[in-house]
Amino acid sequence: MAMTGVLKPGFAQVRVLDMEQALVHYRDRIGLNVVSTGDDGRVYLKAYDEFDRHSIILREADEAGLDVMAFKVQDDDVLKELEAKLVKEGMEVSHVPAGEQPGVGRRISFVAPTGHRFDLYADMELSDNGPETDNPDLWRTEPHGMKALRFDHCLLYGGDIDGAQRVFENALGFKTTEVIRQDDGLQIAVFLSCGMKAHDLAIVRNEEDGKLHHVSFNIEDWNSIRDAADIITKYDISLDIGPTRHGITRGQTIYFFDPSGNRNEVFAGGYSYYPGDPLRVWQMQEVGKGIFYYERQLNDRFMGVVT
Amino acid sequence: MAMTGVLKPGFAQVRVLDMEQALVHYRDRIGLNVVSTGDDGRVYLKAYDEFDRHSIILREADEAGLDVMAFKVQDDDVLKELEAKLVKEGMEVSHVPAGEQPGVGRRISFVAPTGHRFDLYADMELSDNGPETDNPDLWRTEPHGMKALRFDHCLLYGGDIDGAQRVFENALGFKTTEVIRQDDGLQIAVFLSCGMKAHDLAIVRNEEDGKLHHVSFNIEDWNSIRDAADIITKYDISLDIGPTRHGITRGQTIYFFDPSGNRNEVFAGGYSYYPGDPLRVWQMQEVGKGIFYYERQLNDRFMGVVT
Amino acid sequence: MAMTGVLKPGFAQVRVLDMEQALVHYRDRIGLNVVSTGDDGRVYLKAYDEFDRHSIILREADEAGLDVMAFKVQDDDVLKELEAKLVKEGMEVSHVPAGEQPGVGRRISFVAPTGHRFDLYADMELSDNGPETDNPDLWRTEPHGMKALRFDHCLLYGGDIDGAQRVFENALGFKTTEVIRQDDGLQIAVFLSCGMKAHDLAIVRNEEDGKLHHVSFNIEDWNSIRDAADIITKYDISLDIGPTRHGITRGQTIYFFDPSGNRNEVFAGGYSYYPGDPLRVWQMQEVGKGIFYYERQLNDRFMGVVT
Amino acid sequence: MAMTGVLKPGFAQVRVLDMEQALVHYRDRIGLNVVSTGDDGRVYLKAYDEFDRHSIILREADEAGLDVMAFKVQDDDVLKELEAKLVKEGMEVSHVPAGEQPGVGRRISFVAPTGHRFDLYADMELSDNGPETDNPDLWRTEPHGMKALRFDHCLLYGGDIDGAQRVFENALGFKTTEVIRQDDGLQIAVFLSCGMKAHDLAIVRNEEDGKLHHVSFNIEDWNSIRDAADIITKYDISLDIGPTRHGITRGQTIYFFDPSGNRNEVFAGGYSYYPGDPLRVWQMQEVGKGIFYYERQLNDRFMGVVT
Repeated sequence: MAMTGVLKPGFAQVRVLDMEQALVHYRDRIGLNVVSTGDDGRVYLKAYDEFDRHSIILREADEAGLDVMAFKVQDDDVLKELEAKLVKEGMEVSHVPAGEQPGVGRRISFVAPTGHRFDLYADMELSDNGPETDNPDLWRTEPHGMKALRFDHCLLYGGDIDGAQRVFENALGFKTTEVIRQDDGLQIAVFLSCGMKAHDLAIVRNEEDGKLHHVSFNIEDWNSIRDAADIITKYDISLDIGPTRHGITRGQTIYFFDPSGNRNEVFAGGYSYYPGDPLRVWQMQEVGKGIFYYERQLNDRFMGVVT
Repeated sequence: MAMTGVLKPGFAQVRVLDMEQALVHYRDRIGLNVVSTGDDGRVYLKAYDEFDRHSIILREADEAGLDVMAFKVQDDDVLKELEAKLVKEGMEVSHVPAGEQPGVGRRISFVAPTGHRFDLYADMELSDNGPETDNPDLWRTEPHGMKALRFDHCLLYGGDIDGAQRVFENALGFKTTEVIRQDDGLQIAVFLSCGMKAHDLAIVRNEEDGKLHHVSFNIEDWNSIRDAADIITKYDISLDIGPTRHGITRGQTIYFFDPSGNRNEVFAGGYSYYPGDPLRVWQMQEVGKGIFYYERQLNDRFMGVVT
Repeated sequence: MAMTGVLKPGFAQVRVLDMEQALVHYRDRIGLNVVSTGDDGRVYLKAYDEFDRHSIILREADEAGLDVMAFKVQDDDVLKELEAKLVKEGMEVSHVPAGEQPGVGRRISFVAPTGHRFDLYADMELSDNGPETDNPDLWRTEPHGMKALRFDHCLLYGGDIDGAQRVFENALGFKTTEVIRQDDGLQIAVFLSCGMKAHDLAIVRNEEDGKLHHVSFNIEDWNSIRDAADIITKYDISLDIGPTRHGITRGQTIYFFDPSGNRNEVFAGGYSYYPGDPLRVWQMQEVGKGIFYYERQLNDRFMGVVT
Repeated sequence: MAMTGVLKPGFAQVRVLDMEQALVHYRDRIGLNVVSTGDDGRVYLKAYDEFDRHSIILREADEAGLDVMAFKVQDDDVLKELEAKLVKEGMEVSHVPAGEQPGVGRRISFVAPTGHRFDLYADMELSDNGPETDNPDLWRTEPHGMKALRFDHCLLYGGDIDGAQRVFENALGFKTTEVIRQDDGLQIAVFLSCGMKAHDLAIVRNEEDGKLHHVSFNIEDWNSIRDAADIITKYDISLDIGPTRHGITRGQTIYFFDPSGNRNEVFAGGYSYYPGDPLRVWQMQEVGKGIFYYERQLNDRFMGVVT
């Protein structure tokens, strides 16, 4: 492939109202491993199948939501190029010094036209309990909970989604894989990929800027969705919707809420995207099927509740 | 991502001894759709979930095997760049004019140090019954047979695998995801990716050059492997091994032979590869587990039979 | 086991408003095979994995619903014993001569206290394309549509469910596996098994007698539920709810409507019941979870719509 | 159903060479729960989804193998009837007093013509951590290891399998579901059911009497077979064969050995058997497919290694 050097979603820093409850949720239910706790109380976690040190940071705060979503890029040269491109697209780029998070190199940071902060970085330490590399087994210890494989993507809500799309396409080399579009051409949602996944980031048009719709984790397959649902009920986790499938991305999915009200998704499957694949377009009258392929209609909670 | 512009495995041209039998196998059992038959008798097929016009070409011949494996690249500019890089790596590049295959643009062609012919091309017509793009359903008509989603990769046998690896890395921007390595450092097998898949091409050291070990198709999940096995037995298709899992790539897999003796694989799952992920290394004493994770030993047929 | 000789649910005769549409639904979507059409227009169908001649009879009528559900018993002696027991329980038993349905022996018939007609019979011809018995393959031809394995059970709505339960337990030797019970002890639903399945018949308390909630078909597993859902959306079949799981029986399930408005279920899994297993009891405050284990709440349509 | 009152396989007492290793295997890998340890050192275990107190008893001994397989019957009256029938079939019946195993009532015991000891009993205490019965969840705590649902059946090797079949059919009311039969009519293997499972007991003709081929546990589905295989490799458990499918019973399966050399199976699926279903017959030339549906050939280890 020949894109501009953004490798993947790297981490998301999520605000939670009660750290102890949040840990039960993300560690014991979703199945992440706790890596470390910072002096400032932030807790760093990772999925068992990720090489990098951490991918989810929980920060206790008075309000739920997303502080920042970060992408890993190929190397520091790419980071410099991307900074220039961001500036060219009109973004104000600030700098986060190495070490602001343990094991993470310098980051550049910008606020997208939808009001969301995104960071880019080239360096993160490898985890010492990531996947094995010498005659590797599937896992070091049996995965637990929902057996999340990786932090996968975020879906965000904000106003100027066309502006955000332009920045991600033009400056960062993302491709738009699918859109929801009104008959008058107005885009209601855009799905953006920096690699071969159907989406690494999705943004939905919304009056209020800077909102988080959900943080998503990849799990193995449709059976894992069922097993996640079994866990959700057993531990009385608030379900949003699922098990179901998306028309958009074709992902098999279930949505639920963390104890602070942040929406989570665990999903499996979906198509592989190749740059050059045609754009998939959903009209508003089919948006129900696009979002929930089986139900073929939206529910108010899914559309309205964000953090 | 920031590689050199090779998008994906595009097609494989496979030699079969009897076209009628081959069609029953690839069309009815593996589940491909026939696209067209050329004046020269070549039959063009595609998996139902592929956008491009065709991905498998069957050519009747006296000897089974692989004529050529081709990769699709981003555009014609990339094609020119890659030609220059191939020449720089010492490859002799020849040209195949547009139209040698219906709907396919000009190709450049080289013979890798392992004796295998590879083609690169930027343009292929889109299929008129590929995936839908307007409010798309999962499929146009119910998938049949093993429900192959796409032609995925080839595993090839030849002598100078280090040479081939060098060409694919240096000229074409592939990354090596896994290797099998003797204690003295000699590489026995290399697994190469041009994107986020654990492999798009694999090459195993072998005395004789230019050999095909298998052509592989991606299917949905572990249940699809079982369903494929049910079909293999029902229609008395020659089984090689499986259902099982690879240690290398973690793919869930089953191997079998087409009526001409060419080995096929259908597989599901496996990890997603990100450029920058550490190399996975298998030592010879663990190679059994690397190849067949459950059996933890090789069988002679799997190692010895190639076409 | 030592029950009174009822072997299994044998057939259900379902009223449909339009036979042609019904056939598309039951044959092409659910995946049944058409066996024959009677002089009176009734169409006989069977699932591919059933030994007996037919299991679903469609009858065109002005109103949807269930004419009769029938159970197969061990032999004619058992049929006589069961008639005596039914009479002893106060049931009026009538007789249907052999041949009223092609290939089916004499039946005895009674109307349960909930207003539903049930038939019992000992003899039905074997199908000539049921499962193989000599070195049997899994199937004769690849299953199609939702790949229904068998007609499995009905859920019925009526008034005197205690009376019906008594007849099925005392006369026919069924066991109650689960109940939904109000705090005052009033039973809202009873689940009855004549063998090792979690239910062969379920009855829910309802003001109006003789109503059908759903006819259910067994399919292979949770993946088959997803595949059924894919079919439901593709062919724009009216979905009720699912994919989900029942707390009661633990079955993995999806509900939808035939073109006449009769509700169907395809389901997989659930526990095996052994006579002697403790009764499972659901209180009304947990009934949502009992019915839909993931959603943990009922929907009006599921409760209210019957035929 | 109307059989003679045998409900199900109740327990198997297995001899192991080293209790500590055996516990790691049966508890941590297969996923049973330890119930208690007797004064005589026997360890009692159960699967999480079983109501009864225990189903597997491990006894440390100098030689691996099976002490006894036991069936649970409906009540003490049935036990008396079955004793009379066993005597009538020429069996010598002995008595095991209540309390020989904790929580188990009196047993009757006989040695089948194949040299295997079988016990029958009517009473076993319910476990206090079996499945819930009041608004039950799927499980009390997340299942672990291979997530065995229940002890399911044994396959035994011995000489007079016709004699054993006669006793199980005539005295205990079992039905023969499938046989492997030579062209001269000699039965090589018989599969016997006391309910609706494709088999609760299987016996294969063998020169030596009283041998155990395997003890089998039921697990959820084909994905669980893969997960079991992942565990088998991770913990370097000796694999026999699988994941594969049986032609006989259609079960999806994997075989492996406990540290003492006793063969275990975990399996999923397979057809439901109804009394009255036709006998399935396998000829010797198709026995490979009958045993291993995918490989279509036996391996020496599977046939020859017993304990």
